[in-house]
Amino acid sequence: MINGYNLIGLKQSGEGSEILHAFSPVLMQDLPGDFHIATSAEMKLAVTKAASAFEVYKQKTPVEKAVFLETIAAEIQAINETLINRAMLETALPEARLTGEIGRTCGQLKLFADILREGSWVEAVIDEKMPERKPLPRADIRKMLIPIGPVLVFGASNFPFAFSTAGGDTASALAAGNPVIVKAHEGHLGTNELVGGAIKNAAVKCGMPDGVFSFVINNNIEAIESLVKEEDIKAIGFTGSFKAGTAIYKTATSKRKTPIPVYAEMSSVNPVLILPNKLKNQAGATAALLATSVTMGTGQFCTNPGLIFLIENEETVPFTNSLAGLLSNIPASTMLNKGVCNNYYTSRKNLEQQQGVNVLTPLTDASDAYKGAAMLLSTTAEKFISNEALQSEVFGPSSLIVLCKNEDELNQSLQVLHGQLTGTVLGEGDDYEKFAASVNLLSNKVGRILFNGVPTGVEVGHAMVHGGPFPATTNAASTSVGADAIKRFTRPLCLQDCPSEYLPDALKDGNPLNIMRKMNGQYTR
Amino acid sequence: MINGYNLIGLKQSGEGSEILHAFSPVLMQDLPGDFHIATSAEMKLAVTKAASAFEVYKQKTPVEKAVFLETIAAEIQAINETLINRAMLETALPEARLTGEIGRTCGQLKLFADILREGSWVEAVIDEKMPERKPLPRADIRKMLIPIGPVLVFGASNFPFAFSTAGGDTASALAAGNPVIVKAHEGHLGTNELVGGAIKNAAVKCGMPDGVFSFVINNNIEAIESLVKEEDIKAIGFTGSFKAGTAIYKTATSKRKTPIPVYAEMSSVNPVLILPNKLKNQAGATAALLATSVTMGTGQFCTNPGLIFLIENEETVPFTNSLAGLLSNIPASTMLNKGVCNNYYTSRKNLEQQQGVNVLTPLTDASDAYKGAAMLLSTTAEKFISNEALQSEVFGPSSLIVLCKNEDELNQSLQVLHGQLTGTVLGEGDDYEKFAASVNLLSNKVGRILFNGVPTGVEVGHAMVHGGPFPATTNAASTSVGADAIKRFTRPLCLQDCPSEYLPDALKDGNPLNIMRKMNGQYTR
Repeated sequence: MINGYNLIGLKQSGEGSEILHAFSPVLMQDLPGDFHIATSAEMKLAVTKAASAFEVYKQKTPVEKAVFLETIAAEIQAINETLINRAMLETALPEARLTGEIGRTCGQLKLFADILREGSWVEAVIDEKMPERKPLPRADIRKMLIPIGPVLVFGASNFPFAFSTAGGDTASALAAGNPVIVKAHEGHLGTNELVGGAIKNAAVKCGMPDGVFSFVINNNIEAIESLVKEEDIKAIGFTGSFKAGTAIYKTATSKRKTPIPVYAEMSSVNPVLILPNKLKNQAGATAALLATSVTMGTGQFCTNPGLIFLIENEETVPFTNSLAGLLSNIPASTMLNKGVCNNYYTSRKNLEQQQGVNVLTPLTDASDAYKGAAMLLSTTAEKFISNEALQSEVFGPSSLIVLCKNEDELNQSLQVLHGQLTGTVLGEGDDYEKFAASVNLLSNKVGRILFNGVPTGVEVGHAMVHGGPFPATTNAASTSVGADAIKRFTRPLCLQDCPSEYLPDALKDGNPLNIMRKMNGQYTR
Repeated sequence: MINGYNLIGLKQSGEGSEILHAFSPVLMQDLPGDFHIATSAEMKLAVTKAASAFEVYKQKTPVEKAVFLETIAAEIQAINETLINRAMLETALPEARLTGEIGRTCGQLKLFADILREGSWVEAVIDEKMPERKPLPRADIRKMLIPIGPVLVFGASNFPFAFSTAGGDTASALAAGNPVIVKAHEGHLGTNELVGGAIKNAAVKCGMPDGVFSFVINNNIEAIESLVKEEDIKAIGFTGSFKAGTAIYKTATSKRKTPIPVYAEMSSVNPVLILPNKLKNQAGATAALLATSVTMGTGQFCTNPGLIFLIENEETVPFTNSLAGLLSNIPASTMLNKGVCNNYYTSRKNLEQQQGVNVLTPLTDASDAYKGAAMLLSTTAEKFISNEALQSEVFGPSSLIVLCKNEDELNQSLQVLHGQLTGTVLGEGDDYEKFAASVNLLSNKVGRILFNGVPTGVEVGHAMVHGGPFPATTNAASTSVGADAIKRFTRPLCLQDCPSEYLPDALKDGNPLNIMRKMNGQYTR
């Protein structure tokens, strides 16, 4: 069933002689099958097909695009079991988690289908003409969001469904009316092929143009840079490491003839503030909550809580001991792949060797079985403030406690904090009032601020922001999860004095789509 | 009244010994007064003050910010005559134009004040909690747009009021809740000081924090690069040349520790398509309309029509002769400054010397009096398609006719066309139907498409897009004119399970601000 080909538009293609294999961290060996690295001609063809497909695809009605997204979801659900079996071998993620993730992936596709059917997402704005206005008449001026063209998507290793081939970037880009080219993730090449096939089947069933979707296999940095530089690529969605994300961002902004937007979600240590009342009254429950959050999915979440700020007092030591104890008792579990596992132990080592860092858990190394063992470290605010290395992401089940002498040290730490996806405040009683300045400082640095919860678990809804200031992302004005993710792959087009018969439906008089619009400055249907 | 100081927060400052003078192209000599180039310490102080002011200013209520903007408008109107007299000397723009431009500038400030009072611009979205949801409960999740921090604004020479010190970038950044630092334009240093003083007076009257507004005088490239690299600057608004705009963009995206968004509006030749029926039936009126648009304000508009596409037939030659005749009879008029005038004749010469370009008007050179004489040139689609130099902006009263043998050549020309602020289609009867493919291709390349009008004249409203694909701007998803310009200087912040007493008013239950919000996916007040 898996044959190792690239998907160039509607056609499977394996022109290249270079081969990759899919390695299973569970079986600790290569899985059967040769995956053909895409040649530069195949990659160029995917781009050319996408550019041609754009002119056809963007003209499809909202309902046609909605049906396409729903059909992709149905095609994925139809091979649910095959997908889970393959993804388990490729990523070591457990069955229940993958089952849930497929549900989430299909839910995302359906959310965007619903948004298309509802229609208001295009932000239609109409200023009617005022021929009698003095000193000058006003023209009829209307605008709406339109798709921007082919989008290149780099999926993540840690969500082989929800942030990969048919994940949020692909779903939102297709929903907006753009063809998509996925750079297949080497960590789940078979899963990618199966999901890509489901998208292809949906494209054929829905009569979508050749080139509306492609995926290419290639892990060569120069080849990827060439792809990023293709002028017909109009935007990039990326989830992955800081190093890869910033390299793509710099290429896209500085090395292309025409710079393009890059929505890269990269690096976050997701600080948690435990305020004094909370620590005093709920130390045990808080330690249990954090131990679960730090180790969930072997810590391989973008929103994993990697920093815990505490104000030192008599409760601090019992709490850290209790958290260390809980984490020590959680068995090491298999990580996504060799690379992720090696990086975990390398960055863990780098952190533990920083001056003034104490290790609170046994330094278990389970890398021979590609397993990640949980780790808790601690340092002082003084060290944290003066050493940026203590802010490095350790992708895996690790967290660093920062002990602050007082509120002032806490606030100084928050001042130097890098941009984050999330920030969490755990408080009780008058904690929030007393630490209002800290909460404000934290909110300056994050895309989402949580109260009395854990950052892991990202709701796919209308109000979600999965984004945040650099280095969490390269574009703090956007979200990669939730309804507004669609807006990343659009731009406004303004039509002035357009004859009514040529207006798009969203901008027509009488509002035939019955969408929310802004007319002469007032919201109305 | 004009003393040549920088404005560093609320304080006038002239620490530097280097001096600039304001040159009058009308008097053809320096105006009295020494303008102190800001030292690096002064520029750093402006940034530090802006960062501190941000924490205070962002907490001001929408009404407080609205009153501040309205007070700026009132302070500008109070010195209307002084401003016009100075700007006439510095920019050679006529009194009526400057009077209108001050009205527009104050109108923009008031538009943003209205938007703040109405309040819906923050895009509040609320997904209420669902504690009973299976398999997992949903948290209470809310989001809204928040300001991002100090904004650096580079004003334009051609609009000393509407796109400069208190222009659209400043107004929208302040409205969003961000302090502003203006890099004063050397072309109107005195006007800048007067307008800056009006903003300072308004800040004092409204009790705004020291640092909410500053302007610095500096024309040194390294000094400007250092300013762009200041980490406390969080976004940049720019209107000006392609060279300066792209230099700032590259510094901001590649040379800073933390890349920031750059909204640069740079270069556009604003193509006009004259379709066959229109040419046949309204050649005279069309020539008159275009002659006026090309020479309006000595051609010094971002939306000046610099390219005219025609399908060759028996009407083409009489039309081009008629347009050339009209343009030849329009007297040369004084340009904004020496630099603009020199650039005009240099880029005109560059264009006229390209292979296959014919000059249809006398090659009048009035640069000794800093005057720009109108010019019309023509070329073939074949030459246009193969030579990018024919797409270079000639900032001034010049336009290039591109003669296309047929629709196919027109469409090929539109395929290679760079991104533009505007595209104009002049048609009649079945023109639009016959040339639907051309109109589609044109709309791919522009931020605003106009039908049977001229691109000069940019309405300040809700539906305006003054933006477009690169190189017209560095961010096609934004507009620098109109209501949505405010969104450039914001980012969404998501609050999860925030205690109700700490929610901002825009996100509170019961909607106390009575704004349009999206609740559980439905628009509602």
